[in-house]
Amino acid sequence: MRQENNSENSILKRIFARAADSAENLAARAVRLGIGDDAALFRPRRGHETILTCDWFLEGTHFRSDQHPADAVGWKCLVRALSDVAAMGGVPRCFLLSLALPESHTGRWLDAFLGGLRRASRKFNCTLAGGDTTRCREILTNVTIVGEIREARAVLRSGARAGDVIYVTGRLGEAELGLRILRSSPGQMRPGNAMLKKHLYPEPRLAVGQWLAEKRLATSMMDLSDGLSSDLSRLCAAGRVGADVESGKLPVVQHSSTSRGAGVHPLHLALHGGDDYELLFTVRPSKVNMLPKAFRGVPLTAIGRITEQRGVVLLKQAGRERQLHPGGWDPF
Amino acid sequence: MRQENNSENSILKRIFARAADSAENLAARAVRLGIGDDAALFRPRRGHETILTCDWFLEGTHFRSDQHPADAVGWKCLVRALSDVAAMGGVPRCFLLSLALPESHTGRWLDAFLGGLRRASRKFNCTLAGGDTTRCREILTNVTIVGEIREARAVLRSGARAGDVIYVTGRLGEAELGLRILRSSPGQMRPGNAMLKKHLYPEPRLAVGQWLAEKRLATSMMDLSDGLSSDLSRLCAAGRVGADVESGKLPVVQHSSTSRGAGVHPLHLALHGGDDYELLFTVRPSKVNMLPKAFRGVPLTAIGRITEQRGVVLLKQAGRERQLHPGGWDPF
Repeated sequence: MRQENNSENSILKRIFARAADSAENLAARAVRLGIGDDAALFRPRRGHETILTCDWFLEGTHFRSDQHPADAVGWKCLVRALSDVAAMGGVPRCFLLSLALPESHTGRWLDAFLGGLRRASRKFNCTLAGGDTTRCREILTNVTIVGEIREARAVLRSGARAGDVIYVTGRLGEAELGLRILRSSPGQMRPGNAMLKKHLYPEPRLAVGQWLAEKRLATSMMDLSDGLSSDLSRLCAAGRVGADVESGKLPVVQHSSTSRGAGVHPLHLALHGGDDYELLFTVRPSKVNMLPKAFRGVPLTAIGRITEQRGVVLLKQAGRERQLHPGGWDPF
Repeated sequence: MRQENNSENSILKRIFARAADSAENLAARAVRLGIGDDAALFRPRRGHETILTCDWFLEGTHFRSDQHPADAVGWKCLVRALSDVAAMGGVPRCFLLSLALPESHTGRWLDAFLGGLRRASRKFNCTLAGGDTTRCREILTNVTIVGEIREARAVLRSGARAGDVIYVTGRLGEAELGLRILRSSPGQMRPGNAMLKKHLYPEPRLAVGQWLAEKRLATSMMDLSDGLSSDLSRLCAAGRVGADVESGKLPVVQHSSTSRGAGVHPLHLALHGGDDYELLFTVRPSKVNMLPKAFRGVPLTAIGRITEQRGVVLLKQAGRERQLHPGGWDPF
């Protein structure tokens, strides 16, 4: 943890006082804090590989500080990165937080941010081990997660084969609908409905991912961060395969007055909505009967099949079909 | 490695084509690429701890894209983080690159940036394993280094005891003088003199750090990133000790027409100049005779002693002394 001056030192002290685990917790995880030193030390368990992933969460690009509560920013910057560990089937161990802030946000905003970060850190059992803070005109966060998985158990994107059944966890499009609700509301608001909560405080599907990896049930897996149409295309490209998706099987958002009011079609949200952080995975036909309808309360839904022919095809009711092109979130 | 869309995919492909090691190199290091998947996998060696550190390098805060050549930005974003691994005595293994760019910088600028990054990656034997790219109004980089060190050999900041001799590597203040030369020059320029080179293309003191850790010669160590006055105060605070520094012993920049022209005093540069990425370390008196004058061409200079009394005192010629207060670089 680089410490650039005394005022930065005081910020670092607050970060660790509010967001870090107790020393006993750290010892149990074999993590030695990077605060007050140049780097953190981590002792991985025997027979395990280390999983490494990092993720941007930037004001302007990914959130707006006038609309997103600070504690949701703290929660989500960690969860986004945790979702990548879930998508390998891994167990998160610790994380590094890189935080750049305007001086105006080093007071109450930072406290609320750290509150959200700490709740996520505790809930998903991932300890703050170090990081770097500096000053910037905008709020910038970058989180690196260090996780573990038993050797050779990581589920890659590239393992899907023709005939495999395609599954998703949870419901698709809820976070996108939540974002639309947020945008149509004046100022900041606290999550009142489930869609908004899914946008502001998503949950990484760690338990499902770990179970699929441990039982060797998934042939390929990734998380849905940009939307099914974009992410399924990537999974297919990685495995040099294609996919047929049955639109009638997609676990779309439940129709409600809210979603109808937003004037968006549930199928469109399910295909192209980003930020769900659900898992997309494939299962050999012979193992499909080992999958329950839900795992620890999270629905597991078969939505189609992997094909030999490249490209993703959407099969609609009444036998119509069309090519599905990536239409998810796009920073460039 | 999150891939946010096709145009981002093409940027990622260029990053890996230009900056990544060959597959054989990766296999030798037991790193599995994070590109095209959600995360990278890393298999640490037995009997080793993993070192984790991350570091911001931001346009506006740390560099200016109108003054700093793109390849120097690529070089330096990696070296700054490597210096933290050197300061623990560790061996770098792989890194994650988080890069946010305006669309205007995804062409030639990015190519030059990746050129500098690749040179540093090869020279210091640290492989690109994954990362995250996105769009932003400014150029933002964050680098996470994953390194290794034999268990219980890491040199912490906190180990200095009264009587220990304080050492620094190299010369102090050169990078600060280089920055002043850069600022007084119109537009971008290529490094013509050693000071400018030290500012644009610093070298992490990995070999010295590893040797000190392996031989158990250093009782404490950190890297000099913000300037001796700031960093020595931190080393003393971590060990709850103080320090006497002899101004006459400091390895200041060599007087030259350039430095005289810049109108700055070498002692001031050595005390408060940032960005040198030299090592600051302490050695028990009984082991001082094991230290050569230089290690692999890098000078090792004793500059003072650790004291029981808190605070850093600068001892000047003719017996005068004064309290030395942190006067180094300060982002807030």
